[in-house]
Amino acid sequence: MSEAALLFANEAFYAAFARRDLEAMDEVWSRNAAIACIHPGWDLLVGREMVMATWRAILSGPQPPITFDNAQAVIWGETGMVVCHEHVEGQALVASNLFVREGKIWKMVHHQSGPLPVG
Amino acid sequence: MSEAALLFANEAFYAAFARRDLEAMDEVWSRNAAIACIHPGWDLLVGREMVMATWRAILSGPQPPITFDNAQAVIWGETGMVVCHEHVEGQALVASNLFVREGKIWKMVHHQSGPLPVG
Repeated sequence: MSEAALLFANEAFYAAFARRDLEAMDEVWSRNAAIACIHPGWDLLVGREMVMATWRAILSGPQPPITFDNAQAVIWGETGMVVCHEHVEGQALVASNLFVREGKIWKMVHHQSGPLPVG
Repeated sequence: MSEAALLFANEAFYAAFARRDLEAMDEVWSRNAAIACIHPGWDLLVGREMVMATWRAILSGPQPPITFDNAQAVIWGETGMVVCHEHVEGQALVASNLFVREGKIWKMVHHQSGPLPVG
């Protein structure tokens, strides 16, 4: 049940990303907890203002389509992580997506994505 | 207090890594919680057996010296994350290190490291 909700939150993240839906992306991320983000090849971003500013730039820019698969969920109490593969223009990446439970909903608090070797 | 203990656990991880101390590395990682690891350019590893097998290989191989700096801690209840820079042979990486609280100690449950752009 919890795991399904966690995977659903991860899906919502990629749906917002793929649709370039900034409002939906804003909904995905926690408003109550500290948040951070490491885009591929970027340095650490800390705080909602900085993280959302980069999503605003990414979602309004020439971002190619993104899909994900191989999602695996792990839950440690009130914190959950989904690790999955991302696919962008033939490049595969692996991402760690971290969420905290807020009531019945999992809210994103951290995202790190980095390239997989071309294989 | 909690944050100091969390940063200490992160230091213990890099000390074990730098000293190639497999026993200490084994101590750093949780034995009770689910664990996962994404080494730079590797795919996801899940489970203690698989994760420790790669540390055994890495620490007994020709791993060049590693240092870290710019550690920043975030705590969400019983889960804590330290994000920091890693330096290996002039290459800078950024890592997300995830820990869960076990009594007074933070135990590592996930590590993802990926390259920063050469600046």
